[in-house]
Amino acid sequence: MKTIAVDMDGVLADVYRQFIDMHFQDTGEQLDTKTIRGLKEREAFPLLEKHVHAPGFFENAPLIPGAKEALKQIHEQYKVFIVSAATEFPRSLQEKQSWLNRHFPFIPWQQMVFCGSKEIIRTDIMIDDHFKNLDAFQGKTYLFTQPHNENASSGRHLRVNSWEELVGLLATNKQKKPFL
Amino acid sequence: MKTIAVDMDGVLADVYRQFIDMHFQDTGEQLDTKTIRGLKEREAFPLLEKHVHAPGFFENAPLIPGAKEALKQIHEQYKVFIVSAATEFPRSLQEKQSWLNRHFPFIPWQQMVFCGSKEIIRTDIMIDDHFKNLDAFQGKTYLFTQPHNENASSGRHLRVNSWEELVGLLATNKQKKPFL
Repeated sequence: MKTIAVDMDGVLADVYRQFIDMHFQDTGEQLDTKTIRGLKEREAFPLLEKHVHAPGFFENAPLIPGAKEALKQIHEQYKVFIVSAATEFPRSLQEKQSWLNRHFPFIPWQQMVFCGSKEIIRTDIMIDDHFKNLDAFQGKTYLFTQPHNENASSGRHLRVNSWEELVGLLATNKQKKPFL
Repeated sequence: MKTIAVDMDGVLADVYRQFIDMHFQDTGEQLDTKTIRGLKEREAFPLLEKHVHAPGFFENAPLIPGAKEALKQIHEQYKVFIVSAATEFPRSLQEKQSWLNRHFPFIPWQQMVFCGSKEIIRTDIMIDDHFKNLDAFQGKTYLFTQPHNENASSGRHLRVNSWEELVGLLATNKQKKPFL
């Protein structure tokens, strides 16, 4: 069974929606994803450092639309590993695992990885919204669209704009030929 | 720079000493590593489940003798990743990172990995006391001696009995030829 590394923030967890909501609560200013397109997350959200360190930030993240249904489907055809950069924020570790257990109870603890750099992760496929993770990866790569990467060329990575699109591509590719 | 994945429990953290001490505190019985040689950890320590779930178990683990000095030395020649199976015990995640920060402050958060299965970890070298981790690994492997693996043949893995021995081997091998 082929293996897939699936990122959390910006791929399963809708941290943009959360940053926009928290920014509004703190400042009364309603940010628009169109105006922050192409900006790095720390540029788009000046209060990011404060918000990611707030207790419950990772525990309460909303889901990216379609993520739950899509991952359940993919999980039947691939061995899914959730691979999340988490050690930068030690509090996030337990919150992230709790969040995964709640939303994706079919993913066992054996298939969860909380790391810093993803450079030593080796699966057949990687799904991520950050170039730094995909660029260092040797397998097949999908770039999940988020405002911070929206203006960039996806390079050797295949850009996907939704979980629905990704499920379709994985199913098609699977029938055609192996990835590696 | 070559990469090394270093295990925590039984390699950096002396969990045997901790289990023996906690067993004595709970029962008054002093276990001897000679009598538990060859037994799996759960066979050797009937109260293991209780003890690993106790708050502070991972935070307060003693160091394996020589680990600190050895890792500091290895860190100068290799890119060291600490790769620890931790998601089975979610409380351990933050405790393990805190323990690493205290004893190994030279290892940055980028080089810490808390996972379940280690099957998707790809480095040049792996140091571990469990066959299940080493057997699935494609690079050069060192089996760190612990009572549970002491009676087994090390197979394709190179057995090391101490950090001092390991540092010597890594230094020698480095001069001779690349590992892969």
